[in-house]
Amino acid sequence: MVTMQKQKLLINGERLKQELERFAEFGRTENNGVTRLSLSNEDIQARDYFRSCCEELGMTVTVDDLGCMYATLAGTEDKPPIVIGSHMDSVKKGGRFDGILGVVTGLEVVRTIIENQIKPCIPITIVNFTNEEGARFEPSMMASGVLSGKFDKSFMLQKRDPEGISFAEALKASGYEGDSNNRLKEATAFLELHIEQGPILEKESLTIGVVECVVGMACYEIEVTGDSNHAGTTPMRMRKDALFAANNLINEIRKRLGALDSELVFTIGRLNVYPCIHTVIPNKVVFTLEARHKDMQIVNTVKEIIQGLPDLGINEGCEVTTTKLWDRDTVWFAPELCDQLEQSAASLGCSHRRMVSGAGHDAQFIASYIPTAMLFVPSINGKSHSEDELTAWEDCEKGVNVILDTVLKLLFK
Amino acid sequence: MVTMQKQKLLINGERLKQELERFAEFGRTENNGVTRLSLSNEDIQARDYFRSCCEELGMTVTVDDLGCMYATLAGTEDKPPIVIGSHMDSVKKGGRFDGILGVVTGLEVVRTIIENQIKPCIPITIVNFTNEEGARFEPSMMASGVLSGKFDKSFMLQKRDPEGISFAEALKASGYEGDSNNRLKEATAFLELHIEQGPILEKESLTIGVVECVVGMACYEIEVTGDSNHAGTTPMRMRKDALFAANNLINEIRKRLGALDSELVFTIGRLNVYPCIHTVIPNKVVFTLEARHKDMQIVNTVKEIIQGLPDLGINEGCEVTTTKLWDRDTVWFAPELCDQLEQSAASLGCSHRRMVSGAGHDAQFIASYIPTAMLFVPSINGKSHSEDELTAWEDCEKGVNVILDTVLKLLFK
Repeated sequence: MVTMQKQKLLINGERLKQELERFAEFGRTENNGVTRLSLSNEDIQARDYFRSCCEELGMTVTVDDLGCMYATLAGTEDKPPIVIGSHMDSVKKGGRFDGILGVVTGLEVVRTIIENQIKPCIPITIVNFTNEEGARFEPSMMASGVLSGKFDKSFMLQKRDPEGISFAEALKASGYEGDSNNRLKEATAFLELHIEQGPILEKESLTIGVVECVVGMACYEIEVTGDSNHAGTTPMRMRKDALFAANNLINEIRKRLGALDSELVFTIGRLNVYPCIHTVIPNKVVFTLEARHKDMQIVNTVKEIIQGLPDLGINEGCEVTTTKLWDRDTVWFAPELCDQLEQSAASLGCSHRRMVSGAGHDAQFIASYIPTAMLFVPSINGKSHSEDELTAWEDCEKGVNVILDTVLKLLFK
Repeated sequence: MVTMQKQKLLINGERLKQELERFAEFGRTENNGVTRLSLSNEDIQARDYFRSCCEELGMTVTVDDLGCMYATLAGTEDKPPIVIGSHMDSVKKGGRFDGILGVVTGLEVVRTIIENQIKPCIPITIVNFTNEEGARFEPSMMASGVLSGKFDKSFMLQKRDPEGISFAEALKASGYEGDSNNRLKEATAFLELHIEQGPILEKESLTIGVVECVVGMACYEIEVTGDSNHAGTTPMRMRKDALFAANNLINEIRKRLGALDSELVFTIGRLNVYPCIHTVIPNKVVFTLEARHKDMQIVNTVKEIIQGLPDLGINEGCEVTTTKLWDRDTVWFAPELCDQLEQSAASLGCSHRRMVSGAGHDAQFIASYIPTAMLFVPSINGKSHSEDELTAWEDCEKGVNVILDTVLKLLFK
């Protein structure tokens, strides 16, 4: 075992930390978070810095027509590259790890390979996907969505930020509008290291999560329409109280969905009451229900339950309608890559488990045409999309070492 | 029976209707409602017209320091007057009956008495209370609150409307700032005819409600604080979902309050969820609970139940606090006046019942120093504070006839 560890090539943890800290300066907030909206000045600064880092390493940097950046270390053979990366944009007042960790992983892997004078047979490409967060231009995962054919490019170019600037305009102004010929096409593998953004690894005292899939989901809007009347003069039996009806529906949702599977997550995140005056019986409540699970059969059962809500006879005389806002199928990652990542984690002595991703990532779109896998490292208190976002430096280091080990296995298998 | 009916003095229903229609012109909305905010131009037009009507009838019109108008038909004896009235202001896009019906009642009673050459021994005063609705200057029942010593005049004078105009400024500009010596003081009785603003009389096919009391109430704000996390990455067992906790609390409120008494009304009218994003577990829910009942023991039990909510162990790991926003005791009207109104209704062959007022009225404040009673006539579909507000003309007529009969009984007893 000691011998094995000695043979392992390891990254430079201190350099990784410094690089993550360096990127955190592009848009750093006063509470040590980051606001680096896609194609903003802060994002452009980060892009310029990333480009200069890669060029210093002798990599070739290209940009596609969506602003995605590709830095490639040439291989000795002309094979499809191993791609490592994620995104550099953040939400407003986001954290210092979400996305950027996956890009800096690529930098650190390449640096380690170069300083150890390894000549890769396969090219290694670091990718920065444009506008993963969708915080400035909706939807999220915009560029990877176009690359994988899920989104229409011309439609995306028209998307506007809250100030009315279109994605097309911002892209042109940024200097990062490249050529469609540079788009990510064929590749040997795509590997994305990301923070978990949830509490599971930390709660279970594990370091590495090998992500098997991005779970399927369904999101509904449920609208309840009753009758507004004076709260003081309308007897209970003569009311059509939309809030009481919504309360019944939420009870039923919790009871039925709660009984399906312990891994199912479901959330009523948005709920609005009208007219929302303390002396008036509510005549309308609108709320969302979203549910996620890797097993699409369970997601489909959720859909049936939601669609059946209006007919349960618990509407308190109100009208109830359900509208599907969207849904998506579970995306399974490449099993052989998951196996390899697990073996790498084990060989490095990192505690690990298989898990699912409840959140969306560029990898889920890229997986449709490139063998893809993701790796998670723990989020302290499960926090993300917040200035409180934190991952221990040693966990970042271990995650990058697992990626490095898998890259080496792919290079020399 | 036929003989009795012949002896009854009756009002002129057609004149009553025309007068109600005439007042509806002051602030009429395009959907046949009324916007006549207190001391607005529309209210001043209505006041001027009311004053001219009263002066034509030989009544003396005075105004107090709060803008309340008093039109008095002298009596043959110097006794405290019988007072009839209500308010002429409305909410925004309110109805054509709320308030104004009680003032026009006074006009029609006096007209009937004069045209029948009755010389009242006791003076008869028609009152128009300023700013009952509180729609322009909060709180509602402002002037009657000051008259009864519940509200502080100097504090009320500083109240401002949404445009920043103070009540004092509006009062001065209206030309209806009078003398505090003219305030309503001692009186034989105060009688207020009002629309029910609820569905009970219509549902029970009754014409007259003799109001025994304005019910007591308590209003609470309940705040639930949990933890915001990503809806996709946080397992159900690791959540502190403020909305699910609020759902539990609402269940408990409905179960416990619903079991208290069938006449108890309780309403969760305002409920806000934070951050109210479909992909984020809510970390805060704030909602109001108000409950009304004539029996203060029941209201007190409601208070105990609400205050005990945080300790039921149903908080899903969230913090729950309850804050009493306000409460008020039940105000009982003068039993001898209620009896007389009931006898008058019966003698006129009007179907009737005793009932409570769930809404607040000037009468509840005036009752603290003058023998007071209220009479309700049906609201179609229970609608009020809305352009849909409607009461059948014949019901208005019957209500005024009951008031007239009771006034005559008070005059000649």
